Amino acid sequence: MNIAVLGYGTVGSGVVEIINTKHDVILGRNSKEDLNVKYILDRRDFPGDPNEDKVVHDFNTILEDDSVKIVAEAMGGVHPAYDFTAAALAAGKHVVTSNKELVSKKGSELLAIAKEHNVNYMFEASVGGGIPVLRPISFDLAGNNIQKVNGILNGTTNFILSKMIFENLTFEQALIIAQDNGYAEKDPTADVEGIDAVRKISILNNLSFGFGVDPEQIHTEGITHITLEDVAYAANYDCVIKLLGTAELLPDGKVYILVSPALVHNTSMLAKVDDVLNAVLIHGDNVGDVMFYGPGAGKLPTASAVVGDIVDCANHKDERRELNWGALNMDRVADYREIPNKYYIRLKVTDTENVQHEVRSAFGNIYLLARSGAYNEELAFITDSLTENDVRARLDSLNSVVVKSMIRVATC
Amino acid sequence: MNIAVLGYGTVGSGVVEIINTKHDVILGRNSKEDLNVKYILDRRDFPGDPNEDKVVHDFNTILEDDSVKIVAEAMGGVHPAYDFTAAALAAGKHVVTSNKELVSKKGSELLAIAKEHNVNYMFEASVGGGIPVLRPISFDLAGNNIQKVNGILNGTTNFILSKMIFENLTFEQALIIAQDNGYAEKDPTADVEGIDAVRKISILNNLSFGFGVDPEQIHTEGITHITLEDVAYAANYDCVIKLLGTAELLPDGKVYILVSPALVHNTSMLAKVDDVLNAVLIHGDNVGDVMFYGPGAGKLPTASAVVGDIVDCANHKDERRELNWGALNMDRVADYREIPNKYYIRLKVTDTENVQHEVRSAFGNIYLLARSGAYNEELAFITDSLTENDVRARLDSLNSVVVKSMIRVATC
Repeated sequence: MNIAVLGYGTVGSGVVEIINTKHDVILGRNSKEDLNVKYILDRRDFPGDPNEDKVVHDFNTILEDDSVKIVAEAMGGVHPAYDFTAAALAAGKHVVTSNKELVSKKGSELLAIAKEHNVNYMFEASVGGGIPVLRPISFDLAGNNIQKVNGILNGTTNFILSKMIFENLTFEQALIIAQDNGYAEKDPTADVEGIDAVRKISILNNLSFGFGVDPEQIHTEGITHITLEDVAYAANYDCVIKLLGTAELLPDGKVYILVSPALVHNTSMLAKVDDVLNAVLIHGDNVGDVMFYGPGAGKLPTASAVVGDIVDCANHKDERRELNWGALNMDRVADYREIPNKYYIRLKVTDTENVQHEVRSAFGNIYLLARSGAYNEELAFITDSLTENDVRARLDSLNSVVVKSMIRVATC
Repeated sequence: MNIAVLGYGTVGSGVVEIINTKHDVILGRNSKEDLNVKYILDRRDFPGDPNEDKVVHDFNTILEDDSVKIVAEAMGGVHPAYDFTAAALAAGKHVVTSNKELVSKKGSELLAIAKEHNVNYMFEASVGGGIPVLRPISFDLAGNNIQKVNGILNGTTNFILSKMIFENLTFEQALIIAQDNGYAEKDPTADVEGIDAVRKISILNNLSFGFGVDPEQIHTEGITHITLEDVAYAANYDCVIKLLGTAELLPDGKVYILVSPALVHNTSMLAKVDDVLNAVLIHGDNVGDVMFYGPGAGKLPTASAVVGDIVDCANHKDERRELNWGALNMDRVADYREIPNKYYIRLKVTDTENVQHEVRSAFGNIYLLARSGAYNEELAFITDSLTENDVRARLDSLNSVVVKSMIRVATC
């Protein structure tokens, strides 16, 4: 069975490498026919590359070749990836992808085209890199109402936070190390501001709950404002700070969905996920908590997931795999500021004498935190479960304080 | 589509409950037709049970009803489960099961019958209870040579070890609590001696490496001899003691396969799996380390996995899902005593003056361990990487010592 790979960058070249070298494994493990990379689409030439003769520059070469049954899109970005994907699906070719931006923004349209033409559009690699997670949610957990998804969905930010936690480096210092190691881009915005993670939680939301949420309308908060003071206070509360994507089904059928830093208790399996690793913790009503852990990015791990999808398409070439993917429904997104949650608050206080009393009258019960080396002018505490709007109103009522940090406490 | 459930015990009743209550979820998530439990086979009657009218006592009722396309076997044991399964497959019915004993001992025969009759025999629930792990190995990781599998595969022993580690209870004390909580049987042999875990590692071995190993011929060591002294020394070596199933592909194509207690370093994700939870850590050459974590037993978690298989069968009712399952090949099992590994050794010594010198001349480099409250007559250390045969020969060369403990140090 012939395959075309769109984009000969990190992931695309990994896909070609695995398919070229793993014929026996792939056949032995599941695929009913041998897989062959016939074309690689890229703007560039690759003189001297062992696959240089497969490189084409015109997508129509692939589109018009009926022997190509599966297209692996590893270009990234929305255009022209969307256009190529739509055209390939409409031509009756299966498409698999690692492109989370495209899936999170255009998944519904592309799955509709796939359905119309009785082919598959698969995207296991778009969430959690090499970690099997989307297929398990859709198939293994088919006998569950999924109730909650929490994930460490971005390796760059998890690496930075791990450096802050274990090596006492500031965000800025840790970012430089991440960049030096190739874990962060020169412009790290998409990672550190949570833009990458929010695409993934929007995909997880749809497969778990059956409706779409526009990633650009999900509350998204990055980690640039996290300080070593916050890390130290969290540690004294037996927690680590992680960038979490959360999607939780509420009793009214809406979801509490957001990406933000969160204090994760050390007893949670997610607290134990360090460095560039990713993990997704899912609560199903029958199975309880299950977690999927592994490398969330990287050439071969991501390509491994793409190849898994290719094999699944090869095994279902005349048949569609139905997914529980629904249309956009922003009405089912709860206002995250109205969902009660515990919060960690760090204040800079000017009136150290009266502030504790004032805070206690504003907040009621609070759990005061200590850290060694704390300044006199610092007050950190955990609130009871309150909405963000409520917390903000109470904070506004305080005199002579500056809010330095406000981070939710995770419930996973 | 009609389903029959064999055995109305813990797992079987869970399967019936999920299918009866989750029509919409199952249809929405993947199944192309509604699922209906038509028969429940059990020796007993269940007067007053909402499903009592579905209970039958004669397997032939199920076998001869062509409207039953899928049989869920939740009886346990080899006979008559084997006979019913073989007959159902030969009659063109798909069979799914949670029966690890049957799969580990008779999987090859049953998969051959399934193949001959173009139906599926699926057994996700037989390893890791509700945790999706077999399907991800077979399908998601199809582009990998699996190189190593390590698992905490038995919840009972993990619960007991967790009580020893966190509450300083002896094995005997912890076992009683496990029994009181329903986590251990009155006769706990199958769990505490590793018999349950070895069936699971043999199933994982086959799906990962494509050949079978008779579980009764795999080296199996339980946890009954683990003491609080061992737990304390392990802690001072930054480790926890876990009952691990290990199957590792060696350069010569053989596998190092065994079930035994092992010192697992705290940096390993497996060290963090506590109480009755299970986890399987898999190393694929492309993906690296991935881990699957969750409840390894229990009514609804196990039934959740069975239902996942039922849905997969319903979606592939005219088509087989090929598995990388091979015939028994004991020639590919390495002698575990000849594979180098680090070992933790605890000795009772009678000649405290000379023993350190004697041990060091026998073993070369050793890493001496301390614990608070250690007796004078106690010596505990970690060896360099040596084969078990070698370690035993060196221990035999020592005078005036009694070997109290010898536990491998895990490399995962």
